[in-house]
Amino acid sequence: MAKVNVYITLKPALLDAQGKVMQGALDNLGFEGIENVRIGKFIEIEMAESADIEASVEDMCKKLFANPNTENYRFEIIKK
Amino acid sequence: MAKVNVYITLKPALLDAQGKVMQGALDNLGFEGIENVRIGKFIEIEMAESADIEASVEDMCKKLFANPNTENYRFEIIKK
Repeated sequence: MAKVNVYITLKPALLDAQGKVMQGALDNLGFEGIENVRIGKFIEIEMAESADIEASVEDMCKKLFANPNTENYRFEIIKK
Repeated sequence: MAKVNVYITLKPALLDAQGKVMQGALDNLGFEGIENVRIGKFIEIEMAESADIEASVEDMCKKLFANPNTENYRFEIIKK
């Protein structure tokens, strides 16, 4: 069994409205020195190990998890 | 400047409906051997370095980012 962590992030050129809301909330709560907040997705997958697991996860990101117009993805595979 | 990565995950005891939808979609797309999919949040913060940055981020998670009833959090601080 392998555990895969996928990180989906908004492309840097795009304004992260949800992140800005969080940043404003942190300011309101009195946290200082916050320069930027960006919100992405963290996807944890448990799946059978296979020789082509890396290609398979790459494919999942392309076909399902990430919007190629607005999001970047990266992942790490942790073999158990 | 420090970069902080925060990972918010649904507590293991709770059903992740969004994850189940993704798992079903992966099945429909023909991906095999998927045992479990869980969806969380990945929050990237850029902030000024300080001696108490760890306590500060812990506080942010407790007061804003994570719902203590349903979510766990962990974070890592990357000094630049």
